[in-house]
Amino acid sequence: MFQFDLISAEEYDRERGRYAPLTDALRTLVDVGVHTDVGDATVREALGHLEAATALLRQRVREDRPVLRHADTGRPVTWGNPAVGLRNAISPPIVVEHDLAGRCWSEFTLGPVYEGPPGWVHGGVCALVLDQLLGEVASDSLTKARFTGTISLRYVRGTPLGSLRAEAFVERTEGAKTFARGYLMDDEGVTVEADGVFITPAWARDAG
Amino acid sequence: MFQFDLISAEEYDRERGRYAPLTDALRTLVDVGVHTDVGDATVREALGHLEAATALLRQRVREDRPVLRHADTGRPVTWGNPAVGLRNAISPPIVVEHDLAGRCWSEFTLGPVYEGPPGWVHGGVCALVLDQLLGEVASDSLTKARFTGTISLRYVRGTPLGSLRAEAFVERTEGAKTFARGYLMDDEGVTVEADGVFITPAWARDAG
Repeated sequence: MFQFDLISAEEYDRERGRYAPLTDALRTLVDVGVHTDVGDATVREALGHLEAATALLRQRVREDRPVLRHADTGRPVTWGNPAVGLRNAISPPIVVEHDLAGRCWSEFTLGPVYEGPPGWVHGGVCALVLDQLLGEVASDSLTKARFTGTISLRYVRGTPLGSLRAEAFVERTEGAKTFARGYLMDDEGVTVEADGVFITPAWARDAG
Repeated sequence: MFQFDLISAEEYDRERGRYAPLTDALRTLVDVGVHTDVGDATVREALGHLEAATALLRQRVREDRPVLRHADTGRPVTWGNPAVGLRNAISPPIVVEHDLAGRCWSEFTLGPVYEGPPGWVHGGVCALVLDQLLGEVASDSLTKARFTGTISLRYVRGTPLGSLRAEAFVERTEGAKTFARGYLMDDEGVTVEADGVFITPAWARDAG
């Protein structure tokens, strides 16, 4: 069972404003790290700067980051999530939108750092995105406890690097099981289909 | 169909020696980026160093990175792969071992940047790791062209952050389809099971 601390809208905006440029700078560096072709001396010089930045950012750290819930929306604030975290440079990030009918969708770009076979998104990254979308839709935007039971992915064709869209919706609910379905798409249609079964843990079943 | 350039063992070792410390420094920074609690002025100072490092590393870049094959082992060199790439700071990385019986396995550590629910590895990151392992074992260590057709993951229980092991093997082959199976484990046993069907593309079927 998770305990949530509330974060006010003002504090959320302040933290986002402070750290989003840092995360963006790190995403740029991760990409440059794959593509750079500079020699030993330049690498050493760059390392000096990276170590200086690390030392500065370590001057105050919070290892025991509490699980936060936004005071206005009631949704968890997943700063560190590797798919959607605004403070995790591993995430593209994917910003998940929720419509009134209960569907989730997201439009985002996946660049070379997410590549598997040359020119295509890594199949496991497609799975990461779809697991996140299906999990969000199955848990009413993460406001209810749901854990992935199974997820099955069908790769219809290769997913090209670039602009993509993902969407997910709940098909049906049977007792503690929520059945969710989703798609990853490029502008020519579906590239990956996903079906997931999400389980409400026993401790959360009374709450529906 | 992919064209491969050979990379000699000597060149591979030189490139690994030059860039591995850079990727490690970036992994550290990604982690610090999630946990830092410093104020605006310190963030700005750190950003100055990150921008200086980016400028240095951009002095020479290779956007058209060729697909490389190691001259001695014959295996593709996947520097930029988000699961196993030694030059991609998104990857933990996972170093995949191949035994003589054709099984793949890997032991690795997943820290806070791979977290989904508090304390647990993100379900999509489990999928990323297993997709990579199953793909490697289905393609004879990436020496044969095989694309993921389907992959199904069963989450037996939560996967804790920390030391983990993954393994994969081929169950059987039927025509163009290779059936692979794998597990993610902590020291108490299996946490996630995966079954995948990998397809040999038509252009590669003559080569078996």
